[in-house]
Amino acid sequence: MRGRGERLEQQLAERELDRMLVTNIVNVRYLTGFTGTNGACICGPGVRLFLTDFRYTERAEEEVEGWETLTITADWLKGIAERLEGKVGFEDDHMSVRLLKKLEEKLAEDVEMVPAGGRVEELRRVKDAGELAAIEEAAKLADEVWRWSAERGLAGRTERDVARAAEARIRELGADPAFPTIVAAGPNGALPHAEPGEREIGRGELVVFDMGAKLDGYCSDGTRTFATGDPGEDAVAVYEVVREAQTASLEAIRAGVKGEDVDKVAREVIDAAGHGDRFGHGLGHGVGLEVHEGPRLSLRSDDVLAPGEVVTVEPGVYLPGQLGVRIEDLVVVTEEGLRNLSSLPKELQIVD
Amino acid sequence: MRGRGERLEQQLAERELDRMLVTNIVNVRYLTGFTGTNGACICGPGVRLFLTDFRYTERAEEEVEGWETLTITADWLKGIAERLEGKVGFEDDHMSVRLLKKLEEKLAEDVEMVPAGGRVEELRRVKDAGELAAIEEAAKLADEVWRWSAERGLAGRTERDVARAAEARIRELGADPAFPTIVAAGPNGALPHAEPGEREIGRGELVVFDMGAKLDGYCSDGTRTFATGDPGEDAVAVYEVVREAQTASLEAIRAGVKGEDVDKVAREVIDAAGHGDRFGHGLGHGVGLEVHEGPRLSLRSDDVLAPGEVVTVEPGVYLPGQLGVRIEDLVVVTEEGLRNLSSLPKELQIVD
Repeated sequence: MRGRGERLEQQLAERELDRMLVTNIVNVRYLTGFTGTNGACICGPGVRLFLTDFRYTERAEEEVEGWETLTITADWLKGIAERLEGKVGFEDDHMSVRLLKKLEEKLAEDVEMVPAGGRVEELRRVKDAGELAAIEEAAKLADEVWRWSAERGLAGRTERDVARAAEARIRELGADPAFPTIVAAGPNGALPHAEPGEREIGRGELVVFDMGAKLDGYCSDGTRTFATGDPGEDAVAVYEVVREAQTASLEAIRAGVKGEDVDKVAREVIDAAGHGDRFGHGLGHGVGLEVHEGPRLSLRSDDVLAPGEVVTVEPGVYLPGQLGVRIEDLVVVTEEGLRNLSSLPKELQIVD
Repeated sequence: MRGRGERLEQQLAERELDRMLVTNIVNVRYLTGFTGTNGACICGPGVRLFLTDFRYTERAEEEVEGWETLTITADWLKGIAERLEGKVGFEDDHMSVRLLKKLEEKLAEDVEMVPAGGRVEELRRVKDAGELAAIEEAAKLADEVWRWSAERGLAGRTERDVARAAEARIRELGADPAFPTIVAAGPNGALPHAEPGEREIGRGELVVFDMGAKLDGYCSDGTRTFATGDPGEDAVAVYEVVREAQTASLEAIRAGVKGEDVDKVAREVIDAAGHGDRFGHGLGHGVGLEVHEGPRLSLRSDDVLAPGEVVTVEPGVYLPGQLGVRIEDLVVVTEEGLRNLSSLPKELQIVD
């Protein structure tokens, strides 16, 4: 956690804020190391204050480093309000309208709340060595579960059975699913956010298998599309288009490149193959403490990639009523290119 | 879902609102049946509009009943803003400061946003027959998992192992854990929100085992305290105090009684036994789509119980450094009393 409070303090100076109040619990964890469900941080010049309630006093003492820890025993908002001064940035993208109003009622008169959401999320984009190691471990574990799942075979099982077994395996290996696993076969593959259902996976189908593990708080995210026997020429052709788009966009990634431009690279390949209107989502997103965070690789992104950012690269083509293909790697942006955390092959894997 | 929109519409009339905008996704599910992750409702006189994005168009068509469904393809907030008129209640306890500001920038001039959070939560307190059946099923399933866990024995296993095995069993039976299972043995039992750890459960210890299942979106919640062999006279005495407090508070429950007064009944029993300062949480809370919802049974509650409400009754005594006891049932409030959904015995169960 060392240095994170300092980087936040720097941002405050640039924005002429006296204090920053951090209430998003994921951001609180990032800054302090606290893993409980209720806590808040107040950061300012020389001020590093972590607040929690009696349930978490012991845990905070074990986990929180570099922040003074205080247990609020009575009125939570009053406990926060009393410790704020001057111009106070708050996470307006996270704090509810009601909470802000209640907090403001308890503030001293000369305290002013200023919308300043996204500051900690900005810091979170670039991962340090410990974070990269955690994400890499999570990605390895998920890769193991894909291999394990493919070995057990997909055809003849229901989507839900495959997804549940994979999630149970993730837990056996000591992690948690980072999000609900997607297993979508045949026409279901065309629904980008299908829930695994009771449909039995047939032979000769494409199976979109999107999964992530969460280990020590850090997520992985990846997708492979398997075939249960020969899926036919047309399906293979779609698969190869997506694969080409994925390869091309991976090659376009390096520090200094705009997220928008990487997305364009994939989109042009898919456009050229005549499926331009069948790739209805962005190319990728950052991954860390949350499975969706900054930066974004999409047409609507202003983000410029920096070394140490971890992003997904996941082009897809979805043909309604027929099939879907998505191939997703998790990569670390470097000065010259990237380091790919995914160890699974990209050629179409035929499994039972 | 029938009738829920109508009940919300009634509330609007009482509050002189022209529309209600519902953005809390749990409330959206309650009103419409939609189980995806992005959706919003607009309710007004004769207006039942459900909005989602392209990912969920198909799912919405399958799930949503009694609400007109609309897919917003471009700007989500603009899509909402265009469909609001007059005085619009919004969920101020849920909507972020930033989202409200962005939404207001897109509103027509004569539209006014009015804080009105908690309206749908109020409707959710009283469950209909379908909801009661779902909660009952979840409770039965969890009871089965307690029995299964007790049969496998607790002593000699780590808390974490017991908790993980129970959660895996919940999933095998087709549900999900409603919240992270708590298994806290010996002195850990005195930490009301302990995470199951690597400590091995010894012989002659009390084990607080707090668990819930989630089935078809509805939660159960319950706790039993087991003993791994004779825990000694003092521990048994504490157990019996909690049991007496629980029995007395169950007997106090019926429609028309105040949550505060039911809490007092349990607290008086525990006070009389000299442990008044060792019962540091409220007696109970409502359970439904969320594991914590209204009404509250606590000293700070103004809630009056109504037939069809589902609440936990969970007194506890926590002796720091020594042990904890909590006994928690899930019950349906009726006119004359209650229907207890928990089928597990309340006498101290000695397990291996």
